[in-house]
Amino acid sequence: MDFDTFFAEQLDGVREEGRYRVFTDIKRHCGKFPHATRFVDNETQAVTVWCSNDYLGMGQHPKVIDAMHATLDECGAGAGGTRNISGTNHYHVELEAELADLHRKESALLFTSGYVSNWAGLGTLASKIPGCVVFSDALNHASMIEGIRHSRAPYKVWKHNDVEDLDRLLSEYPSDTPKLVAFESVYSMDGDIAPIADILDVCEKHGAMSYIDEVHGVGLYGPRGGGVAEQEGLMDRITVIEGTLGKAFGVMGGYIAASRDLVDFVRSFASGFIFSTALPPAVAAGAAASIRHLKESSEERDLQKQRVAEVRRQLDMMNIPHLPNPSHIIPVMVGDAKKCKMISDWLMDNHGIYVQPINYPTVPVGTERLRLTPSPVHDTGDITRLINALSEIWSQCELARGRIAA
Amino acid sequence: MDFDTFFAEQLDGVREEGRYRVFTDIKRHCGKFPHATRFVDNETQAVTVWCSNDYLGMGQHPKVIDAMHATLDECGAGAGGTRNISGTNHYHVELEAELADLHRKESALLFTSGYVSNWAGLGTLASKIPGCVVFSDALNHASMIEGIRHSRAPYKVWKHNDVEDLDRLLSEYPSDTPKLVAFESVYSMDGDIAPIADILDVCEKHGAMSYIDEVHGVGLYGPRGGGVAEQEGLMDRITVIEGTLGKAFGVMGGYIAASRDLVDFVRSFASGFIFSTALPPAVAAGAAASIRHLKESSEERDLQKQRVAEVRRQLDMMNIPHLPNPSHIIPVMVGDAKKCKMISDWLMDNHGIYVQPINYPTVPVGTERLRLTPSPVHDTGDITRLINALSEIWSQCELARGRIAA
Ligand SMILES: Cc1ncc(COP(=O)(O)O)c(C=O)c1O
Ligand SMILES: Cc1ncc(COP(=O)(O)O)c(C=O)c1O
Repeated sequence: MDFDTFFAEQLDGVREEGRYRVFTDIKRHCGKFPHATRFVDNETQAVTVWCSNDYLGMGQHPKVIDAMHATLDECGAGAGGTRNISGTNHYHVELEAELADLHRKESALLFTSGYVSNWAGLGTLASKIPGCVVFSDALNHASMIEGIRHSRAPYKVWKHNDVEDLDRLLSEYPSDTPKLVAFESVYSMDGDIAPIADILDVCEKHGAMSYIDEVHGVGLYGPRGGGVAEQEGLMDRITVIEGTLGKAFGVMGGYIAASRDLVDFVRSFASGFIFSTALPPAVAAGAAASIRHLKESSEERDLQKQRVAEVRRQLDMMNIPHLPNPSHIIPVMVGDAKKCKMISDWLMDNHGIYVQPINYPTVPVGTERLRLTPSPVHDTGDITRLINALSEIWSQCELARGRIAA
Repeated sequence: MDFDTFFAEQLDGVREEGRYRVFTDIKRHCGKFPHATRFVDNETQAVTVWCSNDYLGMGQHPKVIDAMHATLDECGAGAGGTRNISGTNHYHVELEAELADLHRKESALLFTSGYVSNWAGLGTLASKIPGCVVFSDALNHASMIEGIRHSRAPYKVWKHNDVEDLDRLLSEYPSDTPKLVAFESVYSMDGDIAPIADILDVCEKHGAMSYIDEVHGVGLYGPRGGGVAEQEGLMDRITVIEGTLGKAFGVMGGYIAASRDLVDFVRSFASGFIFSTALPPAVAAGAAASIRHLKESSEERDLQKQRVAEVRRQLDMMNIPHLPNPSHIIPVMVGDAKKCKMISDWLMDNHGIYVQPINYPTVPVGTERLRLTPSPVHDTGDITRLINALSEIWSQCELARGRIAA
């Protein structure tokens, strides 16, 4: 077989479907977020980033940066080993304690990313609990789906956020079948939020474990940034809370928080945890500084809410359609892959505004969008420039205006 | 089902088998490797680390640390997004170019870890090439095995380093079956090295793709640190070279290097690449600095070889059995899980010498060992102290002495 021809053909197919990805090459400017420099064709361009998942700008917070500098000088660059073979640094241990406290759980376990925490966490639980059946929300993230698939446990997909469907599916299994219900709090593409309390009611009714991905919730919701489950006072009813250190906390890494024995079980059996170099100590220290700060400060969360409300208000004024939702994510709906890409390019080329187009397969065909993530680092000038640019291109292209009903 | 009881029982089982892991909590001292502080029961202890995979001490190299400090101040803590959605930093792009150049390949792709690069790289190739059959060395790393399993492609395991067995298995398939042969260069537990040229001969005979894990080779072998394949002048015959940035390069992250289309194919289809926050820019910059340095400097490699030879010489003088091999890894054989753990504890408690015991399932029962990784940062005093301590405990416990035949 001629492998390279095969790869080239497959890539041509991707190109034809209009979903070949060209990465935007940037340097964000620490201390000046959302401003960044874009590198393209040996030239550079000043840009404003409107699609970062560093939702609160914590990636430039002096406490985070200082902790990372200090730890780099204290402990060096990398951990130097897997957790078991010389790679456990005291900053990992402290961070795990910080995370357990954040979610009021007995224990927490770090992974190299949120992706790995879901894949390894769900994969280990579902494969090692004999007879376990997984119930997965239809819109769960790729990392959860891959973890469930990898486990080879039987699984059922319940309709997105549909508690009745979940109840119905759970009812199909005897009460002594071990059950694991996996879902997210904030779904990142539509920005909708799961009915967590109702889901937990159903889980408890069926004696199922609950596993929540709070990747787009931690740092952002709840009085201490414990996520939507903290905001709703539900953390203690959830079996496993999973999160990332790479979005609102601004650094990198993933984790689960749960009971001591569950965490110890995953620690002892998860291949993706055991056989991989631990996070750099400086990354752990930076993440811990970020979490500590957001436990005590609501300033960033409050400011973010204001910015999100302001962007929504101005979009409404201009009649630019965006999906209403209770979260911090603003999906501006375009509904066509080529237009979406074209608008994104135009914003970049003419206004230095960087909003990545979100196309299939990340979202269904016909729901292509620009996903805006306003944050405390966007000032009113940034917002005005964004809205004016959007309005201009909306007129130029005669795009549909109007409100999307809640 | 009472889940916590189940977890507790499973953990008891692990404890009974003597393979419950208690992590050693340390802070390595940047600028003073291999020295570290150990945290235990609210006390601290000064220790010398003898089991790090920061093989050359690059984790404390001023060029690496400086690059990380500078990039932290320039770009902030985290990447702020997945590679496609605002997370591609110019330092990622530069690092990928550096890696492609290191292995003389057209292209390279970064992952958050070596684990993820193997899992996603092999998983994507094996699952997306229709009809692909994988041929996996019997001692391949967990990350490769999980990637292959995840792909659901049929696979055959060939006897470790046995080229004839590989040839035989490949012969069982028609010539037009797409074949992928996966193996490592340096096997990390025995320190033996694959017969790469012979394996490639067989791959070429059968038109199979070759995938080599050089995780324990990159930085350490070859005139520019391109790995064992570089040392043997074989890089251009290998389809995919996979490596880590977390061992000899001293930081964190993983990668593959291959043809432009293969890399672009994995980039476009690998879930574990697409749906995960990119490495922090400072991590990428630190790794690039490390690679650049080791491309030009052989000082660290030379010094490491001297240290490895010196430790081996002194072990031989004391008749302490260690596995002969052509690599930098010195497995001191104990052959009993409890004794291995006991010796490790004794070395730590009495001499502040930290060598993690390696027990089942990482190595087969009966081959339990202390795995020593001498590096340029160990001085002659460190070596003397290690050997004297080992000799003392060998006498005390009346452990077998003698040489293991090569
Ligand atoms: C819902 C969800 N879970 C998990 C992840 C993975 O987390 P990380 O980026 O830390 O790998 C992401 C996105 O990256 C996500 O959107
Ligand atoms: C052979 C081999 N491949 C891959 C890995 C994973 O690399 P990383 O530590 O960067 O995840 C390891 C060890 O950690 C390894 O020993």
